[in-house]
Amino acid sequence: MALRLGAIVEALGGELQGDPALSIERLAPLATAQADALSFLSHPKYQKELVASKAGCVIVSPAMRDAAARRGAFIVTPDPYLYFARLTQLWKQSHAKPEGARIHPSAVIDPDAQIDPTARISALCVVERGARIGAQTVLKSRVTVSEDCIIGARCLLHPGVVIGADGFGLAPHQGAWVKIEQLGAVRIGDDVEIGANTCIDRGALEDTVIEDGVKLDNLIQIGHNVRVGKNTAMAGCVGVAGSADIGANCTLGGGAIVLGHLKMADGVHISAATVVTRSILKPGQYTGMFPIDDNAAWERNAATLKQLHALRERLKALEKSAMQDKPS
Amino acid sequence: MALRLGAIVEALGGELQGDPALSIERLAPLATAQADALSFLSHPKYQKELVASKAGCVIVSPAMRDAAARRGAFIVTPDPYLYFARLTQLWKQSHAKPEGARIHPSAVIDPDAQIDPTARISALCVVERGARIGAQTVLKSRVTVSEDCIIGARCLLHPGVVIGADGFGLAPHQGAWVKIEQLGAVRIGDDVEIGANTCIDRGALEDTVIEDGVKLDNLIQIGHNVRVGKNTAMAGCVGVAGSADIGANCTLGGGAIVLGHLKMADGVHISAATVVTRSILKPGQYTGMFPIDDNAAWERNAATLKQLHALRERLKALEKSAMQDKPS
Amino acid sequence: MALRLGAIVEALGGELQGDPALSIERLAPLATAQADALSFLSHPKYQKELVASKAGCVIVSPAMRDAAARRGAFIVTPDPYLYFARLTQLWKQSHAKPEGARIHPSAVIDPDAQIDPTARISALCVVERGARIGAQTVLKSRVTVSEDCIIGARCLLHPGVVIGADGFGLAPHQGAWVKIEQLGAVRIGDDVEIGANTCIDRGALEDTVIEDGVKLDNLIQIGHNVRVGKNTAMAGCVGVAGSADIGANCTLGGGAIVLGHLKMADGVHISAATVVTRSILKPGQYTGMFPIDDNAAWERNAATLKQLHALRERLKALEKSAMQDKPS
Repeated sequence: MALRLGAIVEALGGELQGDPALSIERLAPLATAQADALSFLSHPKYQKELVASKAGCVIVSPAMRDAAARRGAFIVTPDPYLYFARLTQLWKQSHAKPEGARIHPSAVIDPDAQIDPTARISALCVVERGARIGAQTVLKSRVTVSEDCIIGARCLLHPGVVIGADGFGLAPHQGAWVKIEQLGAVRIGDDVEIGANTCIDRGALEDTVIEDGVKLDNLIQIGHNVRVGKNTAMAGCVGVAGSADIGANCTLGGGAIVLGHLKMADGVHISAATVVTRSILKPGQYTGMFPIDDNAAWERNAATLKQLHALRERLKALEKSAMQDKPS
Repeated sequence: MALRLGAIVEALGGELQGDPALSIERLAPLATAQADALSFLSHPKYQKELVASKAGCVIVSPAMRDAAARRGAFIVTPDPYLYFARLTQLWKQSHAKPEGARIHPSAVIDPDAQIDPTARISALCVVERGARIGAQTVLKSRVTVSEDCIIGARCLLHPGVVIGADGFGLAPHQGAWVKIEQLGAVRIGDDVEIGANTCIDRGALEDTVIEDGVKLDNLIQIGHNVRVGKNTAMAGCVGVAGSADIGANCTLGGGAIVLGHLKMADGVHISAATVVTRSILKPGQYTGMFPIDDNAAWERNAATLKQLHALRERLKALEKSAMQDKPS
Repeated sequence: MALRLGAIVEALGGELQGDPALSIERLAPLATAQADALSFLSHPKYQKELVASKAGCVIVSPAMRDAAARRGAFIVTPDPYLYFARLTQLWKQSHAKPEGARIHPSAVIDPDAQIDPTARISALCVVERGARIGAQTVLKSRVTVSEDCIIGARCLLHPGVVIGADGFGLAPHQGAWVKIEQLGAVRIGDDVEIGANTCIDRGALEDTVIEDGVKLDNLIQIGHNVRVGKNTAMAGCVGVAGSADIGANCTLGGGAIVLGHLKMADGVHISAATVVTRSILKPGQYTGMFPIDDNAAWERNAATLKQLHALRERLKALEKSAMQDKPS
């Protein structure tokens, strides 16, 4: 199952310095790679690890050419991390094992669902009436795609994903709640990846929309009528409330919360565990997170925080008093 | 599949001004509705959208009657949002497609489970020994109801829900953990809705209790021996730790965390991403959330926050010194 | 199904004061226990409840012997909570109902998976090619164990768990994302418990590792190449980003977030809803959480927080000015 260096550069490009016949048995990080492994240097700050690595070959940027040359074989490419990504794909293809049935017999597919002949549906999935699954899309095990929801081409849905459960729509009435039936669906574009146990709710009247190239990690909640713009990526445990309109090429860190009925422009980056409480119309990095501290220090500061407005008033009073004391 | 305006007011009440024979093909928001659509005005602040809307008919409150009359057909009702909720239910009923088997053949039902003849169990559900499912309750696909757990009438459990997994009970012993078997179960009342992939753990000795009319969104965690009072609603990604006792008619915003062994009175409202660290015995709105800011501003403020207690001490010292400087 | 007190102390030890023939019908908390119930006092602060309890017998520490003696039968043991934990296990064994098939016929097991003959696989699980499940390990319903992942002995995986979905690995390229195939797997040690709908991702090149005795609650996300050290416990809704290296005997409170590529020493305790943004190399308790307040107070303090750095500058200026005003 090895790949020769020559075959790798033939498939992926890059300039090889070293023996094209060298056999690569595995891909490995610099620190643990041995002579049979191919590794990569993603960032110049790891140069020390490059020098110390026992890897049979390393992928480096032009700037690292000299450092790499001092230790053995290397492949030069403008973006080693991208090259590495493509190499993992090549590796996976070369090591692919025979696949079973295209639609696993344990999957429950409604006769009125439309599944492209090149899609794969794994064990114990549910695809309901009116749902559509596009070309080369893969549903891993135990995915639910509910009524009338549409998944584009080349998508990958990991186990436990739920597409198209009812949005959380309720009208208050005499102390109880009256359900608002969710009459919309979910539309997911092409090249979307959705992590394990992530949920995307169907819309109330119109559809929830996930545009092309969006990448969602595990355990994310997307509320009804949200729009997630093209190529936006969200880390695990993010929650997005209903009708949030998130632009393209945004990133959301793990555990971030986005409130409903607000707008995020293209290119907005939200740090982990940050709560987006208002529209953000300017690209940039935004954060709101209580800094971690040892518990005793935190207790003191948190207690003071509850008096912060009062402290400001006291500071103002002091300033005013100091002004008055100044000799005129 | 259209509904005439006359049939709608016959079913739901309200005062129709306009042609009862007008055929409604869809429900739609004001902004996108066309002449074949029925829309609604939930709040006077959207009056501008009302005027601009091309909807065939709109549902409005008495205060909006004049504004509505200037543009075409309308239905007057005291609470348009509630009317809209009921309309979505009417719409769903009118458009219902034939249902399959009451218990999907792929569901795994223990012979010692009791399922009301009017309940529906969808594909790939698991209902264990001793579990009971009430009248007209619906389990969507891939729901687990564990041993001895009870679900009331007219409940709706979305895909991936887990009722009655073990609570997180551990006794520390010599650096390791000894499991506390969870001998209680989960009891869920009537008219409860539970969102996709939400988990409600079984009790340690007594039961975890979800009272009538509770509404839980997706990806919520309810720990063992929690009580959630009647008609309380929780948005997505909320976590409630063991033995929390939450009153009736509370709301919890998305991503809120409730610590264990505390009490929340009836009518307590917790903002999104807020951590409830102590009992709250007075109704009201409570919040604890770091405000979002651009990252550079956040960094400065967060760094200062770690010195906040010290700043207070410095302020105190200044105040004391200023007092001493005052002429007596 | 009752157990006599004599049988209990014979199995679990402890010093019984009272009638060994007394029949225990249930285990119950002090507050609700009746004469047929066995209860326990976990902490001296509940002594008042001990005195008031109607329990047939209570488990107490030596320090509580006198208080317990004033009310009836009791068992003395150095650690009542540990004793209670073992009692729940004894109780569960004594009340065990006949088990069905060792591997439920609805489970989908790849012929190239290795499952120990003493393991149990419940309904609608998926165990993929190359996966290994150790002795006496139990998979509850609807668990997925993906290709090549390894689960040790005596583990318990609750419904909806996903082991070995792809880690979230993406290389940016021209505004879109290129997938990094995840070529590692997940290795889980012995005596690990994993809560409902929790996800543990497979590694990018090397494996994600969960060491012996780790306890994970529900709805937790563990990213690729994380290491969780021996006997570490995490409460619900925790998120751990990729390549975090978490030591042994740590605890993480509910909703905590751990960022990636950082290290936590052994014995680090993180409070609920706290974000670990940097390595923590010293054992201890760490917290970062905005304190909850009534909403009006929070609004004032949060608004001031956004000017905190400026306030500090103003305080500094005042201090400087006060120093200059001092008579030299």
